[in-house]
Amino acid sequence: MPEIAIVLVEPLYEGNVGFTARVMKNFGFERLILVDPCPLGDDAAARASHARDVLENARICSLEEVYRESDFVVATTGEVSRSVCTPMRMPYYEPAEVREMVREIDGTVAVLFGRENWGLANAELKRSNVICTIPTSEKYPILNLSHAVGIVCYELAGLPRGTYRLASPLEMESLYRRIDAFLDAIDHPDFKRENTMILIRRILGRTMLTSREVSTLHGLLRRTEWHIEKKKKK
Amino acid sequence: MPEIAIVLVEPLYEGNVGFTARVMKNFGFERLILVDPCPLGDDAAARASHARDVLENARICSLEEVYRESDFVVATTGEVSRSVCTPMRMPYYEPAEVREMVREIDGTVAVLFGRENWGLANAELKRSNVICTIPTSEKYPILNLSHAVGIVCYELAGLPRGTYRLASPLEMESLYRRIDAFLDAIDHPDFKRENTMILIRRILGRTMLTSREVSTLHGLLRRTEWHIEKKKKK
Repeated sequence: MPEIAIVLVEPLYEGNVGFTARVMKNFGFERLILVDPCPLGDDAAARASHARDVLENARICSLEEVYRESDFVVATTGEVSRSVCTPMRMPYYEPAEVREMVREIDGTVAVLFGRENWGLANAELKRSNVICTIPTSEKYPILNLSHAVGIVCYELAGLPRGTYRLASPLEMESLYRRIDAFLDAIDHPDFKRENTMILIRRILGRTMLTSREVSTLHGLLRRTEWHIEKKKKK
Repeated sequence: MPEIAIVLVEPLYEGNVGFTARVMKNFGFERLILVDPCPLGDDAAARASHARDVLENARICSLEEVYRESDFVVATTGEVSRSVCTPMRMPYYEPAEVREMVREIDGTVAVLFGRENWGLANAELKRSNVICTIPTSEKYPILNLSHAVGIVCYELAGLPRGTYRLASPLEMESLYRRIDAFLDAIDHPDFKRENTMILIRRILGRTMLTSREVSTLHGLLRRTEWHIEKKKKK
């Protein structure tokens, strides 16, 4: 993965700058660049919360420097013309597409976010390598700045969820055999058996059981069989 | 797609409720349910911005009612144990996985978000159908409430980016033929030709050119050839 810098161009509200620092750190990004920002005070620090370090280490520089020092520049915009034949004439990409584009870059990628009231100027957009847009509802397409940064960081991070072990095919087969035996125990009719087992396999197949859940089901079946046996003996 | 309701359980800060309304509407969701919320005043309304309608139409009810009236309940949590054998014992899913899970549901899906300070209680998590977690950095995993809602809404909406037409294979072939002819015009040596054309196809192949971009390249080649011709004539 490249070094990713989040660049806020002339942000107007310090709260948004603080929230931006926070959500960046939430997804593992720490390089914040501010181009001609509003004054930053207590509100920014409060909203940055435990990402105050990101805020304090933010670099203030010109957009010129950002372009000069970045290997690849992604400009974000909320106002994408539906056709690429209109003014901008640049194709645009979703955050997930941008992730695929930049993931192999060995260098610096700057992601630009524009002013809260009018975004990035056309001249700023044109100098970037690609334009990124977050698909939104037509009824209210204007995202808060920090929400937009959050979604882009979430996609660029592509962090793994962490994993858990599903029950193995062997464990599942043993469960199905147990259920089949259980159907014997409750005198389930032979002529229905195949279809019932297909249904049970279909249901449990999509349930993505963990090993522990499988062993709990085994336990329940065992306990039920035991009760049936007890009754028979009486 | 099912009807999706965003449920904030005992939110503490009205600003977060307002931002939640806004980001919901940004992604086309309008059903907001509040369980025992903090008082909502000017700050909530200001942050809701053009989603004040979502805020004003928010339904206030008990979690009991939410469970009773929902066909499927997704509980979100930031604190997922890495193993499913620990207390919760429930497997968890990423927002994108939850989208796939619920997309065919013909009914109501409620997505619960917990309190800003301690999330959802275990008892609340356990009654839900699935647990959803947003993968975050271990260094600072706690998302602001409205940022979490934004990312889940973004994924659940799965809105199309809108499309633009790439140049067709026919247009691309015609461009490659033109480039090949151009290489003739600049006396590009035959023995290098095949490798050069492979390289050009490789570069332009991944560039995802639009029709307009292809015709601009044609134009540039035409103009260059014209200049070469002119010089030859002199």
